[in-house]
Amino acid sequence: MEFPEPVRDLPPDEADPWRFHDCVTKYENAWIAVTESAVTRPDGRPGIYGVVHYANRAVAVVPIDEQGCTWLVGQYRPTVGCYSWEVPEGGVPRGEDLAEGARRELLEETGLTASTYELVSRTNLSNSVTDEEGLVFVATGLSLGEAAPEGTEQLRVLRMRVDDVMELIDGGEITDGFTVIAMAAADRWRRRLGLGQSVPPVPSQP
Amino acid sequence: MEFPEPVRDLPPDEADPWRFHDCVTKYENAWIAVTESAVTRPDGRPGIYGVVHYANRAVAVVPIDEQGCTWLVGQYRPTVGCYSWEVPEGGVPRGEDLAEGARRELLEETGLTASTYELVSRTNLSNSVTDEEGLVFVATGLSLGEAAPEGTEQLRVLRMRVDDVMELIDGGEITDGFTVIAMAAADRWRRRLGLGQSVPPVPSQP
Repeated sequence: MEFPEPVRDLPPDEADPWRFHDCVTKYENAWIAVTESAVTRPDGRPGIYGVVHYANRAVAVVPIDEQGCTWLVGQYRPTVGCYSWEVPEGGVPRGEDLAEGARRELLEETGLTASTYELVSRTNLSNSVTDEEGLVFVATGLSLGEAAPEGTEQLRVLRMRVDDVMELIDGGEITDGFTVIAMAAADRWRRRLGLGQSVPPVPSQP
Repeated sequence: MEFPEPVRDLPPDEADPWRFHDCVTKYENAWIAVTESAVTRPDGRPGIYGVVHYANRAVAVVPIDEQGCTWLVGQYRPTVGCYSWEVPEGGVPRGEDLAEGARRELLEETGLTASTYELVSRTNLSNSVTDEEGLVFVATGLSLGEAAPEGTEQLRVLRMRVDDVMELIDGGEITDGFTVIAMAAADRWRRRLGLGQSVPPVPSQP
């Protein structure tokens, strides 16, 4: 069978073919609520749908300095049982301004403040089961003070060239999906603007 | 304060500073289980931790043909209340071979079969609350038969240049985070290998 011709633009959205009935909250804590609904599926058959609702938006901040470097924070993630190097990120409650949340998370985790915070990506992190929203800011015009992490966080911080972080992603050494989304968006944003690509590579440790 | 020198390599992992006690299952369906544990946090203080465990691994397949085109599938996502264009993706139960799951999802959703399925990315999609794992395959050597979607899926399928999909991501028209992870990995894989970049741009519709 021949391949169809490629299209350039997305066609118009179609209407919601799902019907949700009788939504019941099955679990709730300070961060998530789990609901279960009876549903009529797109093919007309009955089923159930469990949805995980998040109290906070996930906000990532990718600081980029004039040497083309960014900052990563390392912490143990008990949900997946491994140590993880990630972009500075945290939860911003609905109601709090997103850029203000980005400013706070960056300062708490790295001690950095920025003159500009630009929103570069807005995605749903796991849309088959959750409503979690992930927003990515790029922070530029950086200056460094003292970090002040939360009690649930035992963080290490390092500075690294964006190009080297992208190679760690390609090599599978960075496993946090939201960090991959954030770095991919920040790297493409930086390349479009031609920013911070002047620094020579850092030699590998012997 | 001066910026620290950039590093090239990640330092060794640190040990798990969390202690989990008394894990109780609070909710369970065919796709997820929610547990709540009493915890001792990294700072030594008590707390609770709710974790969403996934029965399946999320597997995305990015087909790339010799003209530098891929396929997207469109469906309504009731969790986030919007229509979403995504790479072919689905759940692969623990126990099923991942590449076999990739083959099945690609065929069901697009009718495509491939001669090669290469694993290019392995991430955790939302590691503050869930253990969901996302795996990305690039499929090459493509031939087209009949699609056969599941009853929960009412899909539209289109073929589009990878470069154009990346621009839709930059422009915020693609909102599924796993699709962003998959396309970023596939695009960088393709660029490293110098594959499928020969096709001219498709003109925009008037």
